[in-house]
Amino acid sequence: MFDEVTLKISVDPLILSAIKEDITSEDVTTNAIMRQPQAGEADLICKQDGIICGLQVFARTFELLDANTKVELFAKDGDEVKKGQLMAKLHGDIRVLLCGERTALNYLQRMSGIATYTNQIVKLLEGTGIKLLDTRKTSPNNRIFEKYSVRIGGGNNHRYNLTDGVLLKDNHIGAAGGVTKAITMAKEYAPFVRKIEVEVETLEQVKEAVAAGADIIMLDNMDRETMQQAIDIINGSAEIEVSGNVTKENIERLNGLKVDYVSSGALTHSAPIMDISLKNMHQV
Amino acid sequence: MFDEVTLKISVDPLILSAIKEDITSEDVTTNAIMRQPQAGEADLICKQDGIICGLQVFARTFELLDANTKVELFAKDGDEVKKGQLMAKLHGDIRVLLCGERTALNYLQRMSGIATYTNQIVKLLEGTGIKLLDTRKTSPNNRIFEKYSVRIGGGNNHRYNLTDGVLLKDNHIGAAGGVTKAITMAKEYAPFVRKIEVEVETLEQVKEAVAAGADIIMLDNMDRETMQQAIDIINGSAEIEVSGNVTKENIERLNGLKVDYVSSGALTHSAPIMDISLKNMHQV
Amino acid sequence: MFDEVTLKISVDPLILSAIKEDITSEDVTTNAIMRQPQAGEADLICKQDGIICGLQVFARTFELLDANTKVELFAKDGDEVKKGQLMAKLHGDIRVLLCGERTALNYLQRMSGIATYTNQIVKLLEGTGIKLLDTRKTSPNNRIFEKYSVRIGGGNNHRYNLTDGVLLKDNHIGAAGGVTKAITMAKEYAPFVRKIEVEVETLEQVKEAVAAGADIIMLDNMDRETMQQAIDIINGSAEIEVSGNVTKENIERLNGLKVDYVSSGALTHSAPIMDISLKNMHQV
Amino acid sequence: MFDEVTLKISVDPLILSAIKEDITSEDVTTNAIMRQPQAGEADLICKQDGIICGLQVFARTFELLDANTKVELFAKDGDEVKKGQLMAKLHGDIRVLLCGERTALNYLQRMSGIATYTNQIVKLLEGTGIKLLDTRKTSPNNRIFEKYSVRIGGGNNHRYNLTDGVLLKDNHIGAAGGVTKAITMAKEYAPFVRKIEVEVETLEQVKEAVAAGADIIMLDNMDRETMQQAIDIINGSAEIEVSGNVTKENIERLNGLKVDYVSSGALTHSAPIMDISLKNMHQV
Amino acid sequence: MFDEVTLKISVDPLILSAIKEDITSEDVTTNAIMRQPQAGEADLICKQDGIICGLQVFARTFELLDANTKVELFAKDGDEVKKGQLMAKLHGDIRVLLCGERTALNYLQRMSGIATYTNQIVKLLEGTGIKLLDTRKTSPNNRIFEKYSVRIGGGNNHRYNLTDGVLLKDNHIGAAGGVTKAITMAKEYAPFVRKIEVEVETLEQVKEAVAAGADIIMLDNMDRETMQQAIDIINGSAEIEVSGNVTKENIERLNGLKVDYVSSGALTHSAPIMDISLKNMHQV
Amino acid sequence: MFDEVTLKISVDPLILSAIKEDITSEDVTTNAIMRQPQAGEADLICKQDGIICGLQVFARTFELLDANTKVELFAKDGDEVKKGQLMAKLHGDIRVLLCGERTALNYLQRMSGIATYTNQIVKLLEGTGIKLLDTRKTSPNNRIFEKYSVRIGGGNNHRYNLTDGVLLKDNHIGAAGGVTKAITMAKEYAPFVRKIEVEVETLEQVKEAVAAGADIIMLDNMDRETMQQAIDIINGSAEIEVSGNVTKENIERLNGLKVDYVSSGALTHSAPIMDISLKNMHQV
Repeated sequence: MFDEVTLKISVDPLILSAIKEDITSEDVTTNAIMRQPQAGEADLICKQDGIICGLQVFARTFELLDANTKVELFAKDGDEVKKGQLMAKLHGDIRVLLCGERTALNYLQRMSGIATYTNQIVKLLEGTGIKLLDTRKTSPNNRIFEKYSVRIGGGNNHRYNLTDGVLLKDNHIGAAGGVTKAITMAKEYAPFVRKIEVEVETLEQVKEAVAAGADIIMLDNMDRETMQQAIDIINGSAEIEVSGNVTKENIERLNGLKVDYVSSGALTHSAPIMDISLKNMHQV
Repeated sequence: MFDEVTLKISVDPLILSAIKEDITSEDVTTNAIMRQPQAGEADLICKQDGIICGLQVFARTFELLDANTKVELFAKDGDEVKKGQLMAKLHGDIRVLLCGERTALNYLQRMSGIATYTNQIVKLLEGTGIKLLDTRKTSPNNRIFEKYSVRIGGGNNHRYNLTDGVLLKDNHIGAAGGVTKAITMAKEYAPFVRKIEVEVETLEQVKEAVAAGADIIMLDNMDRETMQQAIDIINGSAEIEVSGNVTKENIERLNGLKVDYVSSGALTHSAPIMDISLKNMHQV
Repeated sequence: MFDEVTLKISVDPLILSAIKEDITSEDVTTNAIMRQPQAGEADLICKQDGIICGLQVFARTFELLDANTKVELFAKDGDEVKKGQLMAKLHGDIRVLLCGERTALNYLQRMSGIATYTNQIVKLLEGTGIKLLDTRKTSPNNRIFEKYSVRIGGGNNHRYNLTDGVLLKDNHIGAAGGVTKAITMAKEYAPFVRKIEVEVETLEQVKEAVAAGADIIMLDNMDRETMQQAIDIINGSAEIEVSGNVTKENIERLNGLKVDYVSSGALTHSAPIMDISLKNMHQV
Repeated sequence: MFDEVTLKISVDPLILSAIKEDITSEDVTTNAIMRQPQAGEADLICKQDGIICGLQVFARTFELLDANTKVELFAKDGDEVKKGQLMAKLHGDIRVLLCGERTALNYLQRMSGIATYTNQIVKLLEGTGIKLLDTRKTSPNNRIFEKYSVRIGGGNNHRYNLTDGVLLKDNHIGAAGGVTKAITMAKEYAPFVRKIEVEVETLEQVKEAVAAGADIIMLDNMDRETMQQAIDIINGSAEIEVSGNVTKENIERLNGLKVDYVSSGALTHSAPIMDISLKNMHQV
Repeated sequence: MFDEVTLKISVDPLILSAIKEDITSEDVTTNAIMRQPQAGEADLICKQDGIICGLQVFARTFELLDANTKVELFAKDGDEVKKGQLMAKLHGDIRVLLCGERTALNYLQRMSGIATYTNQIVKLLEGTGIKLLDTRKTSPNNRIFEKYSVRIGGGNNHRYNLTDGVLLKDNHIGAAGGVTKAITMAKEYAPFVRKIEVEVETLEQVKEAVAAGADIIMLDNMDRETMQQAIDIINGSAEIEVSGNVTKENIERLNGLKVDYVSSGALTHSAPIMDISLKNMHQV
Repeated sequence: MFDEVTLKISVDPLILSAIKEDITSEDVTTNAIMRQPQAGEADLICKQDGIICGLQVFARTFELLDANTKVELFAKDGDEVKKGQLMAKLHGDIRVLLCGERTALNYLQRMSGIATYTNQIVKLLEGTGIKLLDTRKTSPNNRIFEKYSVRIGGGNNHRYNLTDGVLLKDNHIGAAGGVTKAITMAKEYAPFVRKIEVEVETLEQVKEAVAAGADIIMLDNMDRETMQQAIDIINGSAEIEVSGNVTKENIERLNGLKVDYVSSGALTHSAPIMDISLKNMHQV
């Protein structure tokens, strides 16, 4: 769950913006039919198996529309849920339930999709000691939801954005004039609480990175043998990340390698949504 | 392309918000290495075949960061592009190119993914005379981009949001006390330029909808035979939409049926991204 | 009444902006005299006859300033009220009553003015079967209040804005290359739930509009005889709107003509305000 | 004219908000017909006599939509214009001209209406030495435009809002415990650059106000004889304002009285709009 | 204390902005350790003597983060507090207390510093009849807090900003073509509730200012003798302000001079903060 | 200098907000005197020695008010400037120069004050190998300017805010159940690019922190001897920060100790401003 502060500072404004995207001035259909508040209920039902994620955001959408809406939860983020399972019951003005339904589900379906997909890959990595990382390949204006979903699915978060993490890529290294210079300049400039991560392509660069005191070394597109040599050179002096394209075959490729992290953009850009719906809406 | 007005009023604020999501105060890495502007270039390269969409948004991201950035385009939205194809060349301060790269690509990859996926289904519908519609199942705060991508892919847009279209669903019909009453109330309340669409489940409801003067009738989960009967009842007095789950088998199911539209949520919630990257960044 | 969702999404931000227009940092006069909260009351009194409209907005203004303010209503929007009538009683911190008085009345007076004026014209149309429509000639940043007031006065709303309705005028027709082409292009481009309205000046254009399938045809500046011919041509295949300048004489001009709607910009740009004031403020 | 700073800080955000009220996502009609920019022109024509006001706001609306729009002005704010007079010529993308037309005219018509109406009353006051003041009875979120229009019409501005002027009314006087105490408390609390204005109803209060050092004394609802006595008591030690309801008869009532100001809410809440339109739009 | 309206309109948005400056998405440290709400308490303790100011803002910071936080106050703004004194006790979710601590203290320490410093100078002026004024030399985006603190310390506020006060300086006088012309133009243009203040450097200018009817005359950089002559010339026809650099020596310089005000930028730009801290945080 | 992106994303909105604080609707004085643009110039002059900082922000303030203003710089941030030195020349509409003067100087004076003060302490630390850090004790809504000023003065930045750095304090340690648990929980929860810093008070805690793999250990209020023992225990396995109260005596206390950083809140909360003014404004 997001804590109360994060909710107010970072989450609510995005939900409100999404609500306004769906309701420019009013829900014409609902207002045409129901001119007065009508107390009602509805059920939140899973339509496929998976890891549920985003129940708080789902509930918050309705609460932001009308503080009197009550969402009774029967599951919590991270639970394995089954097709047909009742996850929550909504109580409130039916007009509000109708207004918020689509926006609330759009969040819940995507967040659960990411948590479910992340969890599948995490399970593939079980026993390897390698942790799964996300990337910045998130849907615009949805990062806080998607990075949270990765954590709920069992993954770990890489840096949140360009401001709060240093990652020296080839263009930075080229501009600085080499790995050593790049690391030195970063240490000099960045707030001292930042770890310095550097992306390397050759064993020569690995050596430079170790010597210059990189905190994290990302091995980019190396074959298994080169990775093993890089690991030997690093020898515990920095954390090791391997980037990209995790599949069952890749995993085997990593077997037995002492790397700390593997990162995957697909967690947030390619997870299919989880099918969930609001059912049995009725007056009470 | 978005016209200049839409760009300023509706698109720019969302892109700016996405940029701020990725840069809370500064790009620490880039600023550590490059303390001064450095003129440079980079190439936008397709990494798989598809329908490109979002080039204007891609370019706009860099222009919003720094008005001096120039994006030279070699393709336009809707073009079929091939793996390896050079679609654009960026000219500007390399620091700006690095700052905007991820946000710009996050938009372009998703938009192209939707256009490509939509186009595949549009092709399946060729010859049937049936048009493909999107839904409101879009990523929160990305609707304007995703509905545009559907159009670029050859699809049509259903209502934009709850304010600008009337769609009477089972809950509305129940609350109003029947199809006839619901349509009457909607005609009375909604701005008179709105079409009135009603979702029906039985032939009885179809008859009521026709009699009450519905503009559009959505056939919900009917088998082929029932759909045929509904079409006969409607007999041209309203447009006909069939909802949901278009696949190759579904399409056959629709063959020969005189319906006007079929809608699909998958266009926006399940299209895989198209792989695109910025390559060959260098100083000039 | 605005429903709870519309209130929060669309109405509150405008009221707050109006409050800030009137209170840049503080109400200096009130704060000079009353340094502490002082419980008090005041009466909302009608100073002329009319249709009251905006009581919820009036009350909301005070509630947004201080959630503890209570507004006890003795009338509701749409009521015919009389000079001297007590419409509401306010209970709260007198400082808050003084801070909100002007902004709350500015809304209430204008909204009631529009409802009253609309209602007068609606009565002139009684028995003709013709409905009265508003236009987009509203006060900037007050459209949601003014369109609502028209409805309360017994009128109907034309499209809300440029996004949610299609109205092809002479410039569009010219640019498209004729009525037929314009209608075809609009049907192809606009979300399919939009009705297509076209403004016509000649009987030739009326024929084209009917043939091209316009949903609404607006007869622009035609004399009675031409209007009658247009009506015969249209023959029920489209709704008919007549635009402009409704007065008692105009009405006679429309007598017996089978048109559906007449629109009037004056409803929102020329309605005189209704005189209303806050009286008998006192401590309790 | 608004200076460049006021324009950017205070005026532009309101115009932009009004534009967004009229264009939620796009102008569907225009975009349906014109998919590409089309250079064009249009004429701004007066349809009745009056004092023109708001030409800069009119032009700014188009410039905010598209910086390439050029507005060639043939008149300036404050000019007496005649029916049929060409006041400006617009050059730009016709799509932009169509998008901005309504919002730009809504401002111009109202502002010119207020300037014209103010000017009529100013002329009635000519030779009396009495200046005409506006009030805070403005349209919500339009105060800066309406107060400006009063000045263009020859009137003067009373305080802008509750923050920047002190006006002690009966409720303040009652709460403070009398005129003297109220003035003393205001002098003690308010920033020392504020003038202290007090509203009085009796000659006793006039004496108190003078003794306590009020800067401005507002005579509320006094008959001519009492006003004369009040003027004699004040005897130049404070400025004198008379409030309300200026008509030809009122003016005679004021004849020969040595008061400095008369204020009128009608300037901003009851001025009829001036009819102005955009004509002859064509491609070039 | 700020009244409820000022709090909502002017103060809350600034506090929220400051909170967002300190919490871009979440408090990582606190959330890492406390995954659930934990009820707790903390004490607000003075670490040096002074005039406390900002307790309401301090409390509001926590309330904005979480409405359930309770702040029990044992002192009020303006109290002389002593080192070690318990000024308030906080009750709430410890996570919220940790999140808001720094922002709340940053406000409280600065505001108390200004009140304390102002109070020291006010005491130096005791018996002279001269009032102490602040200036516009405030920290950007903190003016409302700093002007309030000056009042709490016993000082008076000069104009709030460029909009709500007229102060004719040498550049204005030069541009207008002399003191007389400048005052005349200001009287003609400014809302009539504004006092007209003019800055003068010579006795000649003093005479002009008096003749033109200035409300306030600011003596700029005059020696004691010239000030005395200026006072004689003004002779009660305008208020007199002396600007700048108040120290113990300056004060003697002013002794016996009949001026009304002395202004000091140092109150807001040079007051050292008051040391205050949150102690004894613990679970309950 | 801030790069172009940081300027647009993070700096401009704060400057604009500060401008609006000083100009609610218009600069009444300037507009009263100068009704038309007047080309002019002014000089930016140092009135005391120090390290100049904020020239870009100073210039930007005028550019945001009017893009045509030109600021010709003769110095750059970080330069040692002398009393009387001409640092910049402004060219533009005098009205704009008058409108922006106070806001621009408020930034420049504070930023230069911080840079100057920081630089004085940095010089005291010369030769010790110890780096100077700032804290989060900044003026609300001014952090980006103040942290930048510390860097310009030769200091280093600690974490920017609660989101982008982990610092485990006594309350976190208590809640977690000890140093080891706190560090473990932080490593598990925080994005993996964060360094983990822990504040310790005893040698026992130092040992725990080292064993648990803290990246940075902050020695809180230890005497010299205990610090030396802590340093021996840490023995290069973590960076060492000493917090607080740097003065000449403190510095001696640190002499010869192998610590990496010392942090000081006074850099941002107690630096006196640097006196700078705009002189010689004249028409051209």
